[in-house]
Parts: sequence; C-alpha cells; structure tokens
Amino acid sequence: MEKEIPETSCDIPIRLDNQPLIESVEVDLPVPSLSDNAADLDRLARSLSQKGFSPIRIAPGKMNEFVGKMRENDLRFRAVVGYTGRDWEVLDVVALSPDAPVLGFGLDLGTSTLVLRLIDIARKKTIREVLVKNPQAAHGEDILSRIIFAGDAGGLGILRRLLVEACSDAMEKMLRDSGVSALCVYALSCAGNTAISHFFWGLDPSNICREPYIPAANTFPIVRAAELGFDFLPNSLLYLFPNVGSYVGGDIISGVITAGLNRSDGVRMLIDVGANAEIVLGNCDWLLACAGAAGPALEGGVVERGMQAMAGAIDSVRIDRKTLDPELRVIGGGKASGVCGSGLIELVAEMFSSKIVNIQGKFSTGLNCARFRNTPDGPAYALALCSQSSDGREILISEVDIGIFLKSKAAMYTILSLICRKVGLKFDDLEIIYIAGNFGAHIDPEKAVRIGMIPDLPLETYQAIGNSSLLGACMLLWDRTLLAEAEKVRNMITYVELNVNVELINEFRGALFIPHTDPKLFPSVRFPQDGPQ
Amino acid sequence: MEKEIPETSCDIPIRLDNQPLIESVEVDLPVPSLSDNAADLDRLARSLSQKGFSPIRIAPGKMNEFVGKMRENDLRFRAVVGYTGRDWEVLDVVALSPDAPVLGFGLDLGTSTLVLRLIDIARKKTIREVLVKNPQAAHGEDILSRIIFAGDAGGLGILRRLLVEACSDAMEKMLRDSGVSALCVYALSCAGNTAISHFFWGLDPSNICREPYIPAANTFPIVRAAELGFDFLPNSLLYLFPNVGSYVGGDIISGVITAGLNRSDGVRMLIDVGANAEIVLGNCDWLLACAGAAGPALEGGVVERGMQAMAGAIDSVRIDRKTLDPELRVIGGGKASGVCGSGLIELVAEMFSSKIVNIQGKFSTGLNCARFRNTPDGPAYALALCSQSSDGREILISEVDIGIFLKSKAAMYTILSLICRKVGLKFDDLEIIYIAGNFGAHIDPEKAVRIGMIPDLPLETYQAIGNSSLLGACMLLWDRTLLAEAEKVRNMITYVELNVNVELINEFRGALFIPHTDPKLFPSVRFPQDGPQ
Repeated sequence: MEKEIPETSCDIPIRLDNQPLIESVEVDLPVPSLSDNAADLDRLARSLSQKGFSPIRIAPGKMNEFVGKMRENDLRFRAVVGYTGRDWEVLDVVALSPDAPVLGFGLDLGTSTLVLRLIDIARKKTIREVLVKNPQAAHGEDILSRIIFAGDAGGLGILRRLLVEACSDAMEKMLRDSGVSALCVYALSCAGNTAISHFFWGLDPSNICREPYIPAANTFPIVRAAELGFDFLPNSLLYLFPNVGSYVGGDIISGVITAGLNRSDGVRMLIDVGANAEIVLGNCDWLLACAGAAGPALEGGVVERGMQAMAGAIDSVRIDRKTLDPELRVIGGGKASGVCGSGLIELVAEMFSSKIVNIQGKFSTGLNCARFRNTPDGPAYALALCSQSSDGREILISEVDIGIFLKSKAAMYTILSLICRKVGLKFDDLEIIYIAGNFGAHIDPEKAVRIGMIPDLPLETYQAIGNSSLLGACMLLWDRTLLAEAEKVRNMITYVELNVNVELINEFRGALFIPHTDPKLFPSVRFPQDGPQ
Repeated sequence: MEKEIPETSCDIPIRLDNQPLIESVEVDLPVPSLSDNAADLDRLARSLSQKGFSPIRIAPGKMNEFVGKMRENDLRFRAVVGYTGRDWEVLDVVALSPDAPVLGFGLDLGTSTLVLRLIDIARKKTIREVLVKNPQAAHGEDILSRIIFAGDAGGLGILRRLLVEACSDAMEKMLRDSGVSALCVYALSCAGNTAISHFFWGLDPSNICREPYIPAANTFPIVRAAELGFDFLPNSLLYLFPNVGSYVGGDIISGVITAGLNRSDGVRMLIDVGANAEIVLGNCDWLLACAGAAGPALEGGVVERGMQAMAGAIDSVRIDRKTLDPELRVIGGGKASGVCGSGLIELVAEMFSSKIVNIQGKFSTGLNCARFRNTPDGPAYALALCSQSSDGREILISEVDIGIFLKSKAAMYTILSLICRKVGLKFDDLEIIYIAGNFGAHIDPEKAVRIGMIPDLPLETYQAIGNSSLLGACMLLWDRTLLAEAEKVRNMITYVELNVNVELINEFRGALFIPHTDPKLFPSVRFPQDGPQ
C-alpha cells in the first residue's frame, strides 16, 4: 500500500515573501588576526547575528564538526540554520556550492495511514510523496484500543518504536529513490491527532480517554530529530504541531492553517473525514471545533465491501434509469476490489434516483432488475459482477450496508447542523466549506447533497483541499511564522461537546432519510417522482 | 593523591538575597476539569510561569517521567528548575518533602589537578571537597604536549574521556561517601583554562597554540550534563565558564569574580600561580590580564626535590643563624618527601638571611656548616637529613636549584612590574593583591618580599583567597546573576602580551638578585650585613 508521486511542482500556496523555517546563509568570515582574535564559533555566531539570526545555538556534539568544516573551507561557507521558535540553531556547515540541497519532510501521522512528503525547501518543490500503513494498527485498528495497549507493560514503547521505524523506513527509501543524502534533511514537520502525538513523543496517553480528558502535553518543543529516535537524520530539527485537547489534535490545527480559516473575514468550515469526522467552523475572530463518529462508513471502513479510496476502489457510479445497470469507475482502472466512500455516496444517490431504494433506504418491492440478489442479510444490489471483480466474487451492497451508511451520513449532517446552530448561523452564512482528506478529493458534492449528507448549498461552496494536515505541515517548512500562527489557532479553538440530547436525536432521525424528512432543507434535490435527475 | 574535607560550613561569600542557579519550587496545581482541561505539562509550565520561571523548557526524554511523577503526587509536588541563561529547564519533579536535597558540584579543571566540591545548594553548605590528579598528564605534563597529542588520531577523544571519567569517578565516590543520590545533583559548574575547556568539550585545540591563537570556542551553552558524557547525572545541567582567549581561560574569569576585581572601585590584583603564573589587574572599569612561565618552579615542579603543597612537603623553614641548621615544618607532620613552592621561598629567604647564599644566590665560600654538601651539580644544602626523609635520602637544595628558582621569582616580579607600568600605576596604587591557589594558601608574604618575588608593600595588602577558580564555580551555583557577570568580565578583560624586549630583559636581570639589584625597591628588607632579621 504505497503510492508515489514523482517529482512535481508545488501544490502548496507559498507567499512570495515567505520566511522559511530553515535558511542557508552565505558566510564569509574575516580572517582572524592578533587584533581580531574571536574564537571560531563566536566569530560564526557574531556573523550570523549581524545577518539577523540571533540568538544562535550550537549543539555541543556538533561544535567540533562545524569548526573543522569552517576551517576546511577557509572560513567561507554556507551555514544552514533552523528556527526553533526562540533562537536559531546551526544545523550544518557546507561548502559554498550554489546547489547544496536544503530538504525537509512533512508528515501526516494518521491513525490508519502515514503520509510523508519530501520537500526541497530552497527550491520550493515537492520531490516525492509516499503513503504507508500505520503499523500501530497491529495493536488496535482504532485509537482507543491502542491507548489501552499503551497501558500494558512496554506497550507505549512498542507503539512509539513502530511509528518511528515506519516513518524512518519510508523516509530512508524516499531519500534513496530521490538520490539525496539524509544529511541534507534539516527539518521534519509533523502533525497528528492527540493520541498519535502522544505515541510519537512517548507520552502516556491514558488520561486522554478518561474524564476530564487531560493530555500529558498539548505543546511540544522543537527538538533535534535524533532526540526522538531519527538517528539517520543527524542535522534535522523536528516540529510536532500542538494539540488543542483530547479531541482536537495537531492535524486539525494544521488543517485550519492550510484552509486559512483563521485568516478569513467570512465564516468558513473545514470538514476532515478520517477515522472520525472532525469539523471546524469560524473565521479570524473565532473558531469552533467538534468531532463525531461519522467517519468509518464514509471512508468505506464499515460497509462489507467497503475500502479506502485507492487502486481497485469503485469511486463513481452511474445507474441507468431504465435497465438499472450500473456504470462504474474504478481507481487505477482494472477490476474492482470494493467501493470507497465517494463511490458509496454516488451509489446510494443513484439507487435513490433510480427508485431502487426509497427515502428510507429500503429496497423497493416489485422492481424487476437483473442486479437484485436475495442474501441472508436481506435484499442486495450487485454493483460489480463476478467478471468485473478482482476476486471473482460479486460486489454486493445490501440493505444492511445502506442502513449503516445512512447512519454515517445522518451523523455528518447532524453535526454540521448542530455546530452552526451553536453559534446562531445558517448554512447560507458559510462562505466556503473545505472538504479535506482522501474522502474530500473523491467526493462529488452534488451527489452528497442529493443524499442529504451535506447542506444544499451552491456547489461552488464546496472545495476539496486534499490532505490538509500534511499540507499545513509542509507549509511550515516554508513559513516559520506558522509556528506562532499554530499556537494562536490552538488558543482560539473552542471544542464543542455534542451531547446526546433530544435535539440531537431528533436531528439525527430526520437525517436518516434520503435526503431528509424535511424536503425544504434540500430544495435543489429532485425526487424520483419529479422525474429523472 | 586524594584529599578530603569532611562536611564543613560554607567558606564562600553568598549574598543574603542570592538567586540560585537551581530553584526547588513548590507547585500545587488546580485539579483538572472539563472547564480547565489544560494538558498536564502545559499546566505545569503555566504554574511555573506565574511564579516567575519563564519561559519553561522540558527535555523530550523527561516529559513522560514528569507527567507520571506529577500524577503520582496528586499534582502537589516540588519542581526543580535550572536557569540556562535564556530559559528555565525543568530538571526534576519530586515529592513535597521539606528536605529533598538540591545538590551541585563545583569543578576546577586544572592542568595537573582536578578539584571537585559537592555543594548543598538549598542549605548553602559545602559537603565535601576532593582533589584528584588530572589523568591527562599521562599524555603530557604540560598543556602544549597535550595539544599536540590531541592532534593524533583519536587523541582528542582520549583526553576528553580521561577527563570526564576522572571527574565522574571522583563525583560518584563523593556522592557515595556522603550518602546522597546522583539524582539529586542538578548542576555542574566548571572552570578551566582554555585548552582544558577544549578537551572537556571535545573541541579541536590545535589553533590555540598557533598564531593568531584562535580557540574553537570561547563561550559554551548550558547543556545537560549527560550530553557531555555524565550519564550518571541524568537531572543535571552543566555550565562551563567562558574563556577570554588562548591565554586567559575560564579559571581566571572565575577567579576575578571570586576576588571581586570587577566590582571594586580601587585597583586590585589577582595572582594565580598554577602551571603558569596568571595575573589580572583592574577594577570595575577595566581589567588587564597577562601570563608568564613563572609557575612551575614556584609550585615546586622544576626543582629536583620540589613537589606540590601536599602531605610530606616541607612548606616552612627557619634556619638558625649560628648553627645554620634548619627547623622544618612538614605538611601533615611525619617525614619529608620534598619541598613545595612556599617552602622554597622560605628556604631561600632564610639561606640569604643566614648568609649561606649571597645576593646572587651563590653559596658563600668559607662558611663552616655541617649541612654543606659537594655534589656533581656543585655545592648544596642538606635541608633534610636521611633520618628526616621519607625515602631515606637526604633532601638537597643545590646552587642549580636555587638558580632555577630565582629565575621564576624574577619572572614573577618582572611580570607584576611590567603590567602595572603598562597602565601607569605604581605598586603603591594597589589596594589589595589576592594570591590564589595552593601556592597562595601556603606562602608567607613577608618571606616572598624578602627574596624580592613580590613588591615590598604593607603585608596586609596580600590576601590569600584559595582556589579562586573553584570558588567562583561554586558561587555560580548560588548566584545565577554570575552567568551575566562572567560574560561581562570576559568582554572587559584585555590580554597583554609581554614581548621580549630590552625593557623586559633589564627588569628581569635586576630581579634575579636577592631581593633585587635596586635595594630602594625593597626598603623593608634588612640585608644580612645590617644584622639579624
């Protein structure tokens, strides 16, 4: 499960006057004499301070190496310096070559997937991106199981090591494949949810899941990557995005910064569907966050033949209104292995528009269709025939699958509805709704509206922004002002607990229908009885 | 060669309103709740900041340990924090016991001797002091030989390891003997000359001894002691006094602070005789330093039966004017092994006053004395007979020995004379002359004046201040304002190179006599022909 993007231009918005986290500074020191006899490293610090890099820090274990390299280069060299929030650390001394690479990694530490991007900081380019499975899944698919496992003797250490090793292996391979040296990597910028951040740092996560849900740490100092076990990156700093609290992690803060919610005058929304659905609403004055268990089904994780949006997944479906046969699109072409979240959304929308299911998601009786099947789970629809399927088995979507899916979509709509109501806003007040993640990249907003998963707004309101956690981590490499911005966002965000109360249950019940029991909420949706859509 | 001082009260001047480098702070955190859900470590940092300790740093490897201890103690505990010059590092979390020890070590890293003092920072007491040989001597008695050895493959690493191991072994033994845990040591404060500082930090010292004499570093960051190899002190910071340059090291800066030269209105002088003689002259407005090779003979290192001022050394001599027999004082009582610097000064003064030698240091002819010997090196005086000597051999002082000694004393007087003349001062202008080191502790100023080694000033002008390098290092543990003061002193000191010129040679020639060719310089000294002294 590895995906590679060959060298691409940058898809990350960078300001022209950006101030990178890492700077490569040309240094030409005056030749020492009896009248100017400052020590080598004091001379270096003096010169860097004059160029605005102050105060300067040098790790004790690096001092002798730097003095040697300074002398070898006759005191004319480039100093690579990294910003740590309070001071500048000298990370390397290199020869005065114009093309000395200055590289960094952005890391999204996801519950199920780790995404790593190798960045050329100096040239503002993405070199390579790789996805690998989070090997912690061996000790629990969901975060709660891993938190429990961490409480066992040695458990936390195992989870930490698995994560660091998986990231290290991926990074070493990426460097090898790109033909660049690990010595040229000067920064790792990482974002993850609160529990993963704890595993990564080796912190006890046990209180995250117990009232009053107190993490061990929400903020992390910038350290040398080797201090967290990345020994093969001796010149690199490591930055981990801060968390707001148990339910809102650094991945969300990174996403908010990518979407620019905190810099917007108008009210915007960020929807990030991963293991959970996480929502942030707000603008430059306020930010509200909430989370709900809407995720797995939307990512294809619960439905029997569900899968993530990757090669082999059916991600788009069109059903002929007469024959009721489907037309499929499979990611990467070839035979289908399953159906991903966006495929499910389209499938249910099309089954509804084709009257295969009614507004309750139940199969219509009396329809004559070659794709109908009767299974022990009740009626089902054969989305792919044996000949179209990678394992030779039909891909069936049963009434039970659809019921599960509708619960997820209802949860999503309910969350969106409640968080807006919390601040007295209507959906119309939202300027932009960013949909993040793999899910956002594949979803067709029109279909999602048609089944009542997301509000019935002009389709241009919806913008897919990709892996916003990863992108924010990468942006930081180019823009050190985001260090302060992340801290500001962290303090701005208010987490809203969505209590299970009558209001929520009523909302949810209405949203279980396709698209909703209250059609006025979805004026653009044409019902099957209105004619073809 | 180990000396121990049992638990003593403090001999170091501490201000009443002192601000220690390490503080033990009582912390009582509010119980977390849904409405106050800051993370554990953020809560700790917030509380410490409110008490004035800000910004706060916590080492990544310590975070989980601290969270565990905070929780175990129900969020009521003491946090031990150390000042690093820019921020406060949390070093430990301990139970709320009133007698939790807060310990530190002061270290004087001498060329031949390492002196370590275990300090109770909270109670302002010295617990124990130990002297050990600097094992680097195996690779060169003098600094220059060691610098050359450091240039060999692996040499620098060997010198560094020897130093760190010798210090570690001594400290571990001191802790064991005192019945305290290494976990209660929170600071090492170290001072040494420039070359030793380089060995200690693992820095290439090769340019120290080549024009234009540029050290690799003159200033050192405050680091965790474990970063320099003191793994048995996991909670300790390490501070190394800065150097001025090749010839003026952190030991001298520490000494200047101990003597308070930089806080004095009147002009004072510090004389530190170790491997070299190092002199600082000045007041709160200016400081001048110079160094000369006056040391070894004065410390007993060159004279054949010379030795350091330690058990077995003859440190005081009185010669009967009639019988010409000596009366000896031996350090520690018992038989004599040799003669130390202060013993030599007294011996030469007494031999001169008894007319055994003349003003040129030559043996008088025609004197009848049972202690005279004729040796291959010429005439000699039997200071100790076989029965008084630890090895059964007579301790002889030959004319050659006296000649060597007179060169050292002449060098000393010449340096003192020239440095004062540099700034247009006369000896009379000096308010206090501090004599540091073992040498200073044993020297009798009256005798030193009698042989013309030091200026003929009222004897109360001379004050012995002991190991001023060690004392300054210990003072820092109690007074963090000395961090800034050391940096200020470093920038104030001007090093004066005493060039070999006609003026110096003439000064030196005059000073080779006892006390001097110009008796007007020593009006208080009575010559033998004037009658008994």
